[in-house]
Amino acid sequence: MASLLRLPSLLSPSKPLLRRRLPAARLAAPATSRSQASAAAGAAAPAASETRGGDREGQVTPRSVDFNAWYTDVIAAAELADYGPVRGTMVIRPYGYAIWEAIQDYLNVKFKETGHSNMYFPQEASHVEGFSPELALVTIGGGKELEEKLVVRPTSETIVNHMFTKWIQSYRDLPLMINQWVNVTRWEMRTKPFIRTLEFLWQEGHTAHATLEEAEKEAMQMIDVYTKFAYEQAAIPVIPGRKSRVETFAGANRTYTIEAMMGDKKALQAGTSHNLGQNFSRAFGTQFMDENGQIEHVWQTSWAISTRFVGGIIMTHGDDAGLMLPPRIAPIQVVIVPIWKKGDEKAVVLESVDSVQKILKEAGIRVKVDDSELRTPGWKFNHYEMKGIPVRIEIGPRDVTNNSVVVSRRDVPGKQGKEFGVSMDPSILVNHIKGRLEDIQASLLQKAITFRDSNIVDVSSYGELKEAIAEGKWARGPWSASDADELKVKEETSATIRCYPFEQPEGTKKCFMTGNPAEEVAIFAKSY
Amino acid sequence: MASLLRLPSLLSPSKPLLRRRLPAARLAAPATSRSQASAAAGAAAPAASETRGGDREGQVTPRSVDFNAWYTDVIAAAELADYGPVRGTMVIRPYGYAIWEAIQDYLNVKFKETGHSNMYFPQEASHVEGFSPELALVTIGGGKELEEKLVVRPTSETIVNHMFTKWIQSYRDLPLMINQWVNVTRWEMRTKPFIRTLEFLWQEGHTAHATLEEAEKEAMQMIDVYTKFAYEQAAIPVIPGRKSRVETFAGANRTYTIEAMMGDKKALQAGTSHNLGQNFSRAFGTQFMDENGQIEHVWQTSWAISTRFVGGIIMTHGDDAGLMLPPRIAPIQVVIVPIWKKGDEKAVVLESVDSVQKILKEAGIRVKVDDSELRTPGWKFNHYEMKGIPVRIEIGPRDVTNNSVVVSRRDVPGKQGKEFGVSMDPSILVNHIKGRLEDIQASLLQKAITFRDSNIVDVSSYGELKEAIAEGKWARGPWSASDADELKVKEETSATIRCYPFEQPEGTKKCFMTGNPAEEVAIFAKSY
Repeated sequence: MASLLRLPSLLSPSKPLLRRRLPAARLAAPATSRSQASAAAGAAAPAASETRGGDREGQVTPRSVDFNAWYTDVIAAAELADYGPVRGTMVIRPYGYAIWEAIQDYLNVKFKETGHSNMYFPQEASHVEGFSPELALVTIGGGKELEEKLVVRPTSETIVNHMFTKWIQSYRDLPLMINQWVNVTRWEMRTKPFIRTLEFLWQEGHTAHATLEEAEKEAMQMIDVYTKFAYEQAAIPVIPGRKSRVETFAGANRTYTIEAMMGDKKALQAGTSHNLGQNFSRAFGTQFMDENGQIEHVWQTSWAISTRFVGGIIMTHGDDAGLMLPPRIAPIQVVIVPIWKKGDEKAVVLESVDSVQKILKEAGIRVKVDDSELRTPGWKFNHYEMKGIPVRIEIGPRDVTNNSVVVSRRDVPGKQGKEFGVSMDPSILVNHIKGRLEDIQASLLQKAITFRDSNIVDVSSYGELKEAIAEGKWARGPWSASDADELKVKEETSATIRCYPFEQPEGTKKCFMTGNPAEEVAIFAKSY
Repeated sequence: MASLLRLPSLLSPSKPLLRRRLPAARLAAPATSRSQASAAAGAAAPAASETRGGDREGQVTPRSVDFNAWYTDVIAAAELADYGPVRGTMVIRPYGYAIWEAIQDYLNVKFKETGHSNMYFPQEASHVEGFSPELALVTIGGGKELEEKLVVRPTSETIVNHMFTKWIQSYRDLPLMINQWVNVTRWEMRTKPFIRTLEFLWQEGHTAHATLEEAEKEAMQMIDVYTKFAYEQAAIPVIPGRKSRVETFAGANRTYTIEAMMGDKKALQAGTSHNLGQNFSRAFGTQFMDENGQIEHVWQTSWAISTRFVGGIIMTHGDDAGLMLPPRIAPIQVVIVPIWKKGDEKAVVLESVDSVQKILKEAGIRVKVDDSELRTPGWKFNHYEMKGIPVRIEIGPRDVTNNSVVVSRRDVPGKQGKEFGVSMDPSILVNHIKGRLEDIQASLLQKAITFRDSNIVDVSSYGELKEAIAEGKWARGPWSASDADELKVKEETSATIRCYPFEQPEGTKKCFMTGNPAEEVAIFAKSY
C-alpha cells in the first residue's frame, strides 16, 4: 500500500488543524501573489485562514482577475470536487455529485418519456487496432498478460453494434432505443476538473431505426431534449446547431451540438447528438428484414451529455462570491440561518426555524438548516453564497417577535437582494419563496442571454472575424468555404466552427471568407 | 474494427430470420438433449422455434431437470442479460436493468434517510503491490506504456482512505458518510451471469466515525437496511449474521452478511457490511482531532450490494415457466392482454383496455398493454409468464359486455390462479389489483420462508452435518472449533460457515465438532 500512503506530517497537536486546506489558505493572501501564498500554505497555513468563523473563509480568486484560478478555487471552496491521486483524475464530492444527480433525474425522465430504456454494456471490450490514441488499455488480468488487450470504455458504439447485430433481425425489433449512465475513460493530456478528465461520467444513448428519416428525427429530438434541459433547468442559453464537416464525430453523418458561452466567453460543447447513418451497421453487419422481406442495414443515432455540464453551470453563473446555482437544479434551494445572541433567545429562534423548515419542506422546497454553533452567521452567509444556494432565510429574535423572516437572493448582492419582514404565515411564505426561486431561475437565464448576445459579433469579413476572436468574442457570419479554409481559421485564430445554428437569419448570404453565396451562417469561437 | 466484426452468415433472404436466437431454438428440442439442440441452432433454427405466435417460444429447461441450465435459459428468454464479447462479461438488458433500477431506487432513498450522500471516486488508482490476484491492470494509456500500472477499481477502500485523510481533520468533520453506485472489475475465472462476472455494478458505502461504537452501530444499521430490503421488497428471507474469522473480509474486524437460500438450496451471499475498525485509517494515516484536542485514527465501515442480487431474485422465485418477480420490485406489475377474434370486436376491446390501463396507472400501478397483432394471446401469456410479471389482465368482448376483466396470478398456475368477472369499476378494480399484488408479495415471501426452513437441518455432530450437506441442505449447529476445523469442513464437504445468525437459539450449546462449550450456532452450506 506504500504508493498510496500519505504521511500526515502536518497532523500534530501543536499545529492548528482547522482550515488547513490549500485553496482557502492560498486565498487568504492577496490574489495577485497566488504562487507565494501557495508556497506558504505548503509549509503552514497563514493565520488569517485559521480564524474560525472568520469571513475570509472560502474566498476565491476574483473571477475578473483570473478566470481559470477562480474556477478551480470555486470547485475546491464549494466542495464540488477534488483531485484524485492519479494525474488527471477527479473525485466528485457529494455537493458536486448532487448537481449531477439533478441532471440525471431530469434527463432520465425525459429519456424514458421519449421511449428509451436504460441498460448496461460492459466497459471492457476488445482492442480495436488503429483506433484513437486516447485509450486506456488493460493488458494484465488476474495476474497474467492477456492475449488480447482490452480497451476501457471511451464510448460504446462498437460494443453496442456488436450486440445490436445479435438482437435485431426484423423490423419488429425496431426501433431499438437504449441509454446507459456510465463512466468513460479517455487518456487526455491537459485536464481540467469536470471539463476534461481522464475519466468522466455521462449518459450515452444509442438507437437503431428502420429508416434514415426516423434516425434523423431521433437525433434532432435528443438535441432538442438537451436544449430544453439547458434553458429550462440549468438556465444556460445554449445555441443548438449542426457541426461542420471538420468538427463532425468521425463515425457520424451529422453531429448536432449545443454550444454554451462560459463567463470568459469561451465556448463549451455541452452535449451532442449524432446521426450515425449506416456507418456502424455496415461495419458490423447490423441488418434487419423489412416488412417486404428485404434485408437492410439499420440507421442509427447516439447522443451524450456528461459531468462536463457541471463545469458549464459553474462557468456560466458563478461570480466572485462563488458558485451560483439555478434553483431548479440546486441540491439545496433555501438555507435557513438562525441568529441569536443571548442564551434565552436560542430556543425561541430555533422553534421558528424548525417551523419554517417544515413549512417549506412540505411545499416541496429543498431546504437546509444550519444551526451549528461552531460557525458565526457571517461565516455561514459567505459559505452558502460560495455554495451558490439561491435563497437564504435569516431568522433572529426580532423576526420571531414580528412573525416574519429576512429573505436574501444569492443573485442580487447586498441590501438590494434582501427583503425584510416576509411573513411566516405558511401560505404567504411558501408563495413568496416559490416566487423568488422562479425569479432567480428566470433572472439567471436572462442575464446569461444578455451576456451571450452582447458577445456575439456578426462578421462579414475574415478581418472582422479575427478582430472579434481577438476580443475573446464569438463571431457569426455566412460561411461556405472549404474545410481547408476552416482549418486555416483555426490555425490563425484558435477559433473553430462551433456550429451552424438552427436559427438562421433571413435573406441571401455571402461567405465572409470567399465571397461566394452561402446557405448558412456559422458561429466561430475559441472553446474548451 | 476487425476483431469485433461479426459477419452475419445466417442473414440471407432465403433463410427465415424470425426467432433465430439461440436459447429459444435450443429449447425447442427436448430438454434432455440440450447440446444437440444448441449445435443445431448454430446451423439453422429448428422449425418449431420459428413459428410466429407458437406457444413453445421462450420455453426453458425445467428447473428440476437442470437448475444451472434453467437459470441461464431464463436469463436469455426473459431478456435479462446477454454475454458480452469479452469472456466473462455481461450485457445487462433493459428488463434486467430495470430490476436493478428498482433495487437502486429503494436503497438510494434508505441510504439518504440514514444520512449518506452519493459521490464518485475515480476508478483508476495506483497499483498496490502484492494485492489480490483478481485485478485488471491498465498498463498503456494514450498510446504509451505507463510508468505506474493502474488498477481498475475492484473496490474503493484504498482511494476512499486516501481522500478521507485529506478531508478529515477534526471531530467536526465526522461522521463522514458516503456512498457510490459504480462498476467494479474482478478477474474471475469461473463466471455466471449476475452472480460472478468480470465486471459488475454495485453500491459501496464508506463511512468514518469518531468512535468504535459508532462504526459498529453503522455497520449493523446497514446490514439491517439490506435485510429489510431483502424481506420486504425482494421477498427473499435472508438470514443476517456475522461471518466467521475465516470468511471475514481481509480488511475488516467484523463482516456482517445476509445469506439467501437459492432454489437449488445453495447459499448466496447477497450483501455485506464491514466494521473496518482502524485498519485502513492506520494504514493511511486517516486521523482527526477529537473534542479534547487528542489526535485519533478514525473508525470505519464499508458495505455493498451488487447486481448479484438480481441473480438471487431469479434463483429464489423462478419456476419452470420462467422468472417470477415480487410485485414491489417488478418493473411491470400488471400486463394487459386484449383478446378479440372478429374485426368489429377490436375497437371495443381496445377501448376498455385503454380505460383499464389509465385507471391502474393513475393508481400508481406499473402497467403495460400488449396489443400487438403480431403475436397470439397464447404466445403473450407464455411470454409474460417468462418475464415474471405478477398479474395478467385479459379483456375480451364478453368481458367488455360484462364490464369486467379476467385476472391471473403469475404465482398460482392454471385455473386456480384465475379470477373471472372482476369489475372494471375503477375503485373495485384498483382495490382488487392492489390486493392481489400484496397477496403475491406476501405469498412469495412465505413460500421462500417455508422452503428455507424445511431445508435447514439442526445438527449436533459432524456426521449429521455431512449428511445434511450431502443432501444439499444447510446445516445449523453449535460451533466453537478452530479455523483449521472450519477449513477441514470446507475441504471435506465443500460447505463453509455462511454466518453466525443474529437470531440464536436459547440455552447452553456444545460445539458439534469438538464437544466444547459453544456461544453460538453457525450455519454451514455450499454457496455460489
